[in-house]
Amino acid sequence: MKNQTDSTPNSYVPGEVELDANLQSLIDRRAEAMGSAYRLSYGNPIHVVRGEGVWLYDEEGNPYLDFYNNVVSLGHCHPRVVDAMQKQAKTLCTNTRYVNDKPIEYAERLTALFPDHLSTAMFTCTGSEANDLACRIAKYHTGGDGFIITEFAYHGTTDLISGMSANLGPQMPLHRNVRTVPAPLPQRGGSASEIGKRFTIAVEHAIADLKRHGIKPAALLVDTLFSSDGLCPDPPGFLKGAVDAIHRANGLFIADEVQPGFARTGDAMWGFDRHGVAPDIVTMGKPMGNGYPIAGIVLRPELLDWFGRNSRYFNTSAGNTVAAATGLAVLEVIDEEKLLSNSRNMGAYLKACLNEIKHDSILEVRGAGLFVGVEIGTEGKPDGQKARQLINGLREKRVLISATGRNENVLKLRPPLVAERSHIEHFIAAFHDVLELVDK
Amino acid sequence: MKNQTDSTPNSYVPGEVELDANLQSLIDRRAEAMGSAYRLSYGNPIHVVRGEGVWLYDEEGNPYLDFYNNVVSLGHCHPRVVDAMQKQAKTLCTNTRYVNDKPIEYAERLTALFPDHLSTAMFTCTGSEANDLACRIAKYHTGGDGFIITEFAYHGTTDLISGMSANLGPQMPLHRNVRTVPAPLPQRGGSASEIGKRFTIAVEHAIADLKRHGIKPAALLVDTLFSSDGLCPDPPGFLKGAVDAIHRANGLFIADEVQPGFARTGDAMWGFDRHGVAPDIVTMGKPMGNGYPIAGIVLRPELLDWFGRNSRYFNTSAGNTVAAATGLAVLEVIDEEKLLSNSRNMGAYLKACLNEIKHDSILEVRGAGLFVGVEIGTEGKPDGQKARQLINGLREKRVLISATGRNENVLKLRPPLVAERSHIEHFIAAFHDVLELVDK
Repeated sequence: MKNQTDSTPNSYVPGEVELDANLQSLIDRRAEAMGSAYRLSYGNPIHVVRGEGVWLYDEEGNPYLDFYNNVVSLGHCHPRVVDAMQKQAKTLCTNTRYVNDKPIEYAERLTALFPDHLSTAMFTCTGSEANDLACRIAKYHTGGDGFIITEFAYHGTTDLISGMSANLGPQMPLHRNVRTVPAPLPQRGGSASEIGKRFTIAVEHAIADLKRHGIKPAALLVDTLFSSDGLCPDPPGFLKGAVDAIHRANGLFIADEVQPGFARTGDAMWGFDRHGVAPDIVTMGKPMGNGYPIAGIVLRPELLDWFGRNSRYFNTSAGNTVAAATGLAVLEVIDEEKLLSNSRNMGAYLKACLNEIKHDSILEVRGAGLFVGVEIGTEGKPDGQKARQLINGLREKRVLISATGRNENVLKLRPPLVAERSHIEHFIAAFHDVLELVDK
Repeated sequence: MKNQTDSTPNSYVPGEVELDANLQSLIDRRAEAMGSAYRLSYGNPIHVVRGEGVWLYDEEGNPYLDFYNNVVSLGHCHPRVVDAMQKQAKTLCTNTRYVNDKPIEYAERLTALFPDHLSTAMFTCTGSEANDLACRIAKYHTGGDGFIITEFAYHGTTDLISGMSANLGPQMPLHRNVRTVPAPLPQRGGSASEIGKRFTIAVEHAIADLKRHGIKPAALLVDTLFSSDGLCPDPPGFLKGAVDAIHRANGLFIADEVQPGFARTGDAMWGFDRHGVAPDIVTMGKPMGNGYPIAGIVLRPELLDWFGRNSRYFNTSAGNTVAAATGLAVLEVIDEEKLLSNSRNMGAYLKACLNEIKHDSILEVRGAGLFVGVEIGTEGKPDGQKARQLINGLREKRVLISATGRNENVLKLRPPLVAERSHIEHFIAAFHDVLELVDK
């Protein structure tokens, strides 16, 4: 039985599965020292001790194909990134109140990856902080505090942003000045062009409702792949109407690229690029440091007119020399190892392999680059329980994925960007096997 | 002229001092790429390229005595910490959703440093996030959302916490459910025992005012050394009445140990220990990773009863295996290098040396361990301009400090905890010289 009431896909439920005694003892110590708000993944949690490339290893040396972690996007323990971090950590680790080339160079290299109008970078340590800072700036700039998010969005863990993360479940109240719109999920039988229209109308209604309550809109905040809503990649371009709508209302469009960014979608460095829209602020995190806590925002410099004059911004470790050197190494590896095109090519191969599987449980395969969702159902209806069975079945075959979406029924495949054909074939073979198990 | 209206002690003012051409070019590039909200320290900012122990070095190899940075509290680039970080980063960097010994061991070692009732640790990446999480938990647990802070407190940069950081200046509005109380600063002519009484009464009034407005008190949040209010160390014990008052109102006491924690005060590992009080939540940051972004909270486990059941807590990089290994190394170094007693002894020596200086500009010397404030004035009145002259005079002598307090007139001395007698004598000699300059 779940002893938690929140909505966490694929989390360990104490007592549900009998565990190895050593593992149980570690989990008990963990609960004692880290409390009741942390969750573990998988019915049978994994005790990992080592990582390399697309592989994680347990204490007995068994390899697990990591098809889920989008932080170590360049592969676990990428030597180039570890070296850059260590070299800088041995030399100088200090904050943005001192002049040093590294943070400046990093801010320049980062902003160069964006359209010209996004020419300013500011650093945080986490994606939550990036979204929090972006929303603060949106409030100061617009004078409004109304926000629009999707119905199952997750944007982070600060007080402000957890109140804009519907994904945390119905017990966690959204802020009163937040409105939700249905995610632009494909409707079976509906046409692609309807997705954009429907989403635009929903955003327009949310804007009207904010205004009706005397709340001035500050921003539309969306993950440009709708990663927590169940993945909504298609058709590229559908975001345009919604972005136009928030701009007409003098609100900002904040593109949350914490999950879709840094080449994940294969089509472009950033998810918003696929839609041909111009965000006012872009937020980034997770893969930005390949494990080192680096996050931040890029924005139109004029949005800082009030904030920059009236307040300082300081975040002790964010943009420090080590973070900057590490972030620079990540950008270099993405470029030199051609990870954008690998994400595109391997993502297409993964989707093609998945589309070849004919199985009643697969309702749809969708995705962009190496971020692919497989919607699982029974008799055409979402089936989160079956998705959970598949995920835990794969885990027993030492292949790691998780789930997303309101019904927790969309398998979330997200291997490191260095994944090769053989890894995809390894996954597909294991997936075939577990699909057979749920047939029984 | 300052082109900013915010209150940032000791910040660089563009155009005030003619800078070296290379430095000016770096600063211009920085402003272009990082925008207008970042501040640099010193009238003549420092271009640092290397750090070791208590020293920072500029590009020409000139050493600067770092008497200010409390992040690299074990000294710049401590080899033991860098090695632990690199070893773990080469092995495995993954998050709290997997079982691994390191975060568990770290949580255990950390909570062992606190009174028994604070037996749960939760991790964040920044002190801001730690305060934000602590206040969220206080809201859930108490059902209230009223907070009490001191008049010039700084607690962080998230939306919630910047609205509880009066230090950011009058242009940055506090949240409506926040009340401020005067910091327990020594009053010239007043007795030590009055400080505690006055502070208790102020907190009681703030509680009454919250209730009068229908706002249920959630917590009293204070930095236990009042680092941003101008430093209020004495007499130890004065916090007790205020803590009792918030407890009587069913609110929590949150001890912000981001600056005073990890042996800084010399008397104890934590600032609250000096007062003999029992916090409900303690927040930590800065020196916790000696430069690596590690922060977190410890708390009474029962405060998570609602939160743990109704929401998950996940912070991607916080408490990851590398953060935990690095944090463990920091704890080991504090222990093995006996930094608590060094902080006490060297802090006492620093205060004794300062007290020997007879100079009209020095109104008071106060502090705990290696965190010492020197109140600067003219004819007995606070003089922030003179403090700024002294700070910039020291900077020209390659000794780095800054200022704190409402009038920015309290010199803030905070060398790494590994500082030795010779470093203190180096500082004192330079301080003598700059005091002579302001005589003229």
